[in-house]
Amino acid sequence: MNGQELLKQHISKTATLTDEQFDYFFSHFTLLSFKKGQTIISEGDEVDCEYFVVSGCLKAFFINDDIKMYILQFAMSTWWTSDYNALYSHSRATINVDCITDAEVLCLKSADREKLCAEIHQVEHFFRWRTNRGYVASQKRLLSFMNNDAKKRYEELLTLYPELYNLVPKHLIAAYLGITRETLSRLYNGR
Amino acid sequence: MNGQELLKQHISKTATLTDEQFDYFFSHFTLLSFKKGQTIISEGDEVDCEYFVVSGCLKAFFINDDIKMYILQFAMSTWWTSDYNALYSHSRATINVDCITDAEVLCLKSADREKLCAEIHQVEHFFRWRTNRGYVASQKRLLSFMNNDAKKRYEELLTLYPELYNLVPKHLIAAYLGITRETLSRLYNGR
Repeated sequence: MNGQELLKQHISKTATLTDEQFDYFFSHFTLLSFKKGQTIISEGDEVDCEYFVVSGCLKAFFINDDIKMYILQFAMSTWWTSDYNALYSHSRATINVDCITDAEVLCLKSADREKLCAEIHQVEHFFRWRTNRGYVASQKRLLSFMNNDAKKRYEELLTLYPELYNLVPKHLIAAYLGITRETLSRLYNGR
Repeated sequence: MNGQELLKQHISKTATLTDEQFDYFFSHFTLLSFKKGQTIISEGDEVDCEYFVVSGCLKAFFINDDIKMYILQFAMSTWWTSDYNALYSHSRATINVDCITDAEVLCLKSADREKLCAEIHQVEHFFRWRTNRGYVASQKRLLSFMNNDAKKRYEELLTLYPELYNLVPKHLIAAYLGITRETLSRLYNGR
């Protein structure tokens, strides 16, 4: 499925747009292709866009002072990603986004998102529900981080996103779970 | 300031409503008064409402199998709270919400929120931006949990919400930070 069809199908689960409205909406996106390992957002960048993943897999991550990596989010096909803190507050990026695999993304500028939300009520409806779902997922992950040990978090991730295990190298899954690669190996071999 | 004025001021920071639109919007809220210690949502409840805090302080929390409490959110004047996972997915509550102090809240039913969002574009705009901000705060807290030690998280909380320290007993601040009361005492006395 090409990016336009994928985005149309994705939006139509939440909002009702006429074909004309969707074509107008879609005309504000730019299709970008990235190679595995390429960086989309670097810490310190001005952040002006969010990205709808058409194909491939991205990661949003943070590197601390000890050069330890924490993965905030994986983003696969039909997921959205950006540094939303920077995007919404017009501040500089504090996280990075790069490509785990070759990837195609549809890029939407912040000013265009706001214009489209103001022009088409159903577009605002779509973005409200997209963020509602992101908020709930983020709260669940926070609760899981507070309450669950590595084994439980690992099993949760397996259940929620089984496809990640084919797409994503094990050391990145460890960085998402906040554990070492050795601990992950023990959990992985214990299945 | 009474609840109606407080909500009007709160909404007007994000959305533009005429007086008639605001009065109509406000007519869907119910003012409720609770005593310190009273429960608003219990694990297992059907969740049909979200709450705008007029006065006082609430907490949204989770009790695990070992009867350990984790605080997901404090909610003070002009904050919103509910079990949003249950509210948005029409499932049973997995967390609890109760009152740290006497409190007055404005209750909005889920069906009314959706009706108002559909009827008044600016109401949908308001709720989109409210959740955008909640999403970013939740992502920041997650990153802080992954990366920062208790001392750093304590200092962050102090900086972000200094007023919490007068409103909220220390053992609840410890439950928010995911540390013991003893560790918090050490940090508190080290200031």
